[in-house]
Amino acid sequence: MVNEKPKLEVCLSPALLHLYHTRDTVTVIIDVFRATSTIVAALDNGAKCVIPVASVAECIALGATIPNSITAGERDGKIAEGLQHGNSPSEYPTAFIKGKTLILTTTNGTRLLHMVKDASAIVIGSFLNLDALCAYLLSKGKNVLLGCASWKDKFNLEDTLFAGAVIHQLSGSFEMNCDSARAAVHLYHQSGGNYLEFLKDSSHYKRLSAYNLQEDMAYCATPNLHPVVPYLRGTEIVI
Amino acid sequence: MVNEKPKLEVCLSPALLHLYHTRDTVTVIIDVFRATSTIVAALDNGAKCVIPVASVAECIALGATIPNSITAGERDGKIAEGLQHGNSPSEYPTAFIKGKTLILTTTNGTRLLHMVKDASAIVIGSFLNLDALCAYLLSKGKNVLLGCASWKDKFNLEDTLFAGAVIHQLSGSFEMNCDSARAAVHLYHQSGGNYLEFLKDSSHYKRLSAYNLQEDMAYCATPNLHPVVPYLRGTEIVI
Repeated sequence: MVNEKPKLEVCLSPALLHLYHTRDTVTVIIDVFRATSTIVAALDNGAKCVIPVASVAECIALGATIPNSITAGERDGKIAEGLQHGNSPSEYPTAFIKGKTLILTTTNGTRLLHMVKDASAIVIGSFLNLDALCAYLLSKGKNVLLGCASWKDKFNLEDTLFAGAVIHQLSGSFEMNCDSARAAVHLYHQSGGNYLEFLKDSSHYKRLSAYNLQEDMAYCATPNLHPVVPYLRGTEIVI
Repeated sequence: MVNEKPKLEVCLSPALLHLYHTRDTVTVIIDVFRATSTIVAALDNGAKCVIPVASVAECIALGATIPNSITAGERDGKIAEGLQHGNSPSEYPTAFIKGKTLILTTTNGTRLLHMVKDASAIVIGSFLNLDALCAYLLSKGKNVLLGCASWKDKFNLEDTLFAGAVIHQLSGSFEMNCDSARAAVHLYHQSGGNYLEFLKDSSHYKRLSAYNLQEDMAYCATPNLHPVVPYLRGTEIVI
């Protein structure tokens, strides 16, 4: 009998992206701490759209041309010079962001997003939209690539743990012969589903804790606060 | 108080090697299935030395110039055309290999070894020499990079699991702020120390099983059968 299940793979770093086929896949961009968490929160809270851009200069230039827009982004975990806002989901409550365009540049997440050229769809994943994302992936029935934004191309725990949480939900519905995916599921099991506690022993948690961002990370590690599936439409991320 | 412990990191793929400092580190080359297992076994069984080479052509050419030498290597898990022997530890018992020079080329392990240029020492790691390797790393007191050969640059479970087993033994003696190392330790814990069973659900185990190499892999997953620490001296690996 032919196995007709779609295939699921995990790419652990943008530096490994060239090893995977993205053509005709649904590629999920994952940057738990914090770009994709922020994108999901801002859109669920009413942002008109999020425009991901590669550089701070591009962010500033675009902000000057789009009415009712906000320039935001971080470099090395801090608000980049010349931008108005940072990369924290807590900065974008409904009262502030509703109807606005968020122009965002980050160290890792937006970069990976721009590297994927030929996917059938590019969607945004984070714990904040875990179940909604899984339901979407199941409904599409296409091959899936879970793309971890990592930290400056180095493997990170939080994105891989999230990939494991996704695979745990999807298991059985996809063909999976990918050691990165297996490792992600092992990490998921090691976490016992307690994502925040598990991630407290990670490089990025320690890095962002030095900026007193513990509450931010607790928020980012909470499943299903924002049940939307943002996707890239042209140059804009929308829901 | 200044933390004076040496640093330990894990590189999950040759494609990520450029992100790590190898200068003045002890870099451990790990290719559990099967290059580094074969190197350790052949040297402990009396091989004069192992010469790792990048290409099949180089292997054949060098074999023609070195008396009492054997050309060996695999491509995609099979003996490469033009070479005499494969990449199985079982092919090199004492009665056969004693006093001979083994010229070896493999898909992943020998490639990674040639990529490391400035390490203080390049040594060979596998389950077969786990405890001896750990004792060596402790005795040196230098920074350590555990380099996983992976599979054509893709993350693999077996090399990362071995890295986790090493770190589990060394824990406390090294400074470790590396998510790849943390993930490796999580995999080690998930395995419960039963390496072979754990690795049966891995891409490479499935790939090599198709060539009926299960016994080979069981051997490679057995700790401490060959308590030696091979290292690169010039162009030769010796003990």
